[in-house]
Amino acid sequence: MTGEARIVALGGGHGLYASLTALRDLTPELTAIVTVADDGGSSGRLRSELGIVPPGDLRMALSALCADNDWGRTWRDVLQWRFATDGPLNGHALGNLLIAALWERNGDVVDGLAWVASLLQAHGRVLPLSADPLEVSALVRDDSGVREVQGQVAVATAHGSIEELRLSPASPVVPRETVEAIDAADLVVLGPGSWYTSVLTHFMVRPVADALVRAGQRSVLVLNVGHDDEETAGTGRADDVRALQRMAPDFVPRTVLVDSEHRDEPGLADAVGRWGARLLVAPVRDGLGAPAHDPHALRRELARVAIEQGLAVRGAERGVAG
Amino acid sequence: MTGEARIVALGGGHGLYASLTALRDLTPELTAIVTVADDGGSSGRLRSELGIVPPGDLRMALSALCADNDWGRTWRDVLQWRFATDGPLNGHALGNLLIAALWERNGDVVDGLAWVASLLQAHGRVLPLSADPLEVSALVRDDSGVREVQGQVAVATAHGSIEELRLSPASPVVPRETVEAIDAADLVVLGPGSWYTSVLTHFMVRPVADALVRAGQRSVLVLNVGHDDEETAGTGRADDVRALQRMAPDFVPRTVLVDSEHRDEPGLADAVGRWGARLLVAPVRDGLGAPAHDPHALRRELARVAIEQGLAVRGAERGVAG
Repeated sequence: MTGEARIVALGGGHGLYASLTALRDLTPELTAIVTVADDGGSSGRLRSELGIVPPGDLRMALSALCADNDWGRTWRDVLQWRFATDGPLNGHALGNLLIAALWERNGDVVDGLAWVASLLQAHGRVLPLSADPLEVSALVRDDSGVREVQGQVAVATAHGSIEELRLSPASPVVPRETVEAIDAADLVVLGPGSWYTSVLTHFMVRPVADALVRAGQRSVLVLNVGHDDEETAGTGRADDVRALQRMAPDFVPRTVLVDSEHRDEPGLADAVGRWGARLLVAPVRDGLGAPAHDPHALRRELARVAIEQGLAVRGAERGVAG
Repeated sequence: MTGEARIVALGGGHGLYASLTALRDLTPELTAIVTVADDGGSSGRLRSELGIVPPGDLRMALSALCADNDWGRTWRDVLQWRFATDGPLNGHALGNLLIAALWERNGDVVDGLAWVASLLQAHGRVLPLSADPLEVSALVRDDSGVREVQGQVAVATAHGSIEELRLSPASPVVPRETVEAIDAADLVVLGPGSWYTSVLTHFMVRPVADALVRAGQRSVLVLNVGHDDEETAGTGRADDVRALQRMAPDFVPRTVLVDSEHRDEPGLADAVGRWGARLLVAPVRDGLGAPAHDPHALRRELARVAIEQGLAVRGAERGVAG
């Protein structure tokens, strides 16, 4: 095939930041689709005070795509700047406030994000999963029974196993550009990230879930290298795969990427095998202690996946060799 | 002479916005020097919460210089955007928050403003009178005697006549660039603006006052078309000139521009004559009711002053003719 590969990465927060960092040098045709269910910190306060889509994960994704020059890095740092005061600005990220002002001024979520991308001379674009603020809740089971937990932060830190995930509103407005990006993608990258609140969330919004089903054989699922938040503590990647299969039985990815450390995790090969998907095992965890992907290793493996799907990506030799 | 005219405009708030709007098309070598004594509104809250120079008048000046294209106007509108909420962000201008973040990140007042100017593709640059937040206070006389009034907003709205103006700190840090800009200027424009808190303030900071004395015969003083704030209610332009003469006896401007309506104001010709300055009388007030300069008329007259001083300015024919 000819032309630059069109790659779409879906997720939220730090997981999406990692996949975008890995992908940004592979193609200029990169689109991030971001869950907008965050209700904590600066984002949570802004959605409450201004009634807007929580901007934090969008800001993170945009920052990951900033131009690799003095201009891009400076504005990224400014967007990422967090006020530390004894007053009401404490904890607010400047970029969240900037995105909020753009939205209020322009009245269009997608257009406002495009302006921030222009400011950063970004290597790609960032779209929201929904033009409405989303709220997740979950039924969580522990030793004392099943209880309902409200909100992204509460769900992500709840003790117990998640039995059911819910979204409010149940049928949010989805930007046309979001569905079109998935449909036009040559490669769709799902994960890593907080599994229930950043990855599975995308399958709870009907038009996006439908697009992901259509994109199945153009998709790679990146499993987490660790479970650093508590929503999936005590569970493994096999559980994550099975949760996705229960939630989106028609979605069948072509490739599942797992870190070498989890190659033999019980049940994983079976769960992936049920899809008929290829299980790609590679060392992708960084060696720095925290459970996170190494961006260079992740880039190398995603470049490999792209090339195997016949796509043209940049710096692939360096990526695959490195 | 050859080359673009280097023009410096000093003031604060709406008055400086008017002079910059008038000057921006005359030269690309335009520098605004802004009083940083504001203690009201968003600026006042930020200087209190963050301990920074109040950014509001700097933001206004930068906005006046934005590029005349979609990019410049959009970012100007975003910087000028004010949150309207029931919460703690209410009233904050996004540009004030952006400038604050740049200052905290870069640690340099002048450098931070240069980044905002770059963002706006500004027609010139904006410098602060001081790198320290300034506080003005005044001794104000009314029927019941003399009292001390603290803060820019309180001074600007105090009933009575201002007997003495004070600045704290008395010897603030002045950026090197600020003094250099005045020394290098071909034309220095002082006013219009709140006379005590936006114009005279510049003469209370020693290195700037000294530079203004040196720049006297390169200077034009733009008198106010009305006294819309209360600090000078009941007084006239002759009082303003005399107040400046008392505060800075060594400063002698070359030209004094006054609106035709005030041509015959009692005492004005005498006060200006004491300087040996030329009194330029022209219709410069806008016809819209509010006491403000018409930017086109102000541009025309300032172009005339520049040309009479032998300077090369852009669009001068249109300006002088129009």
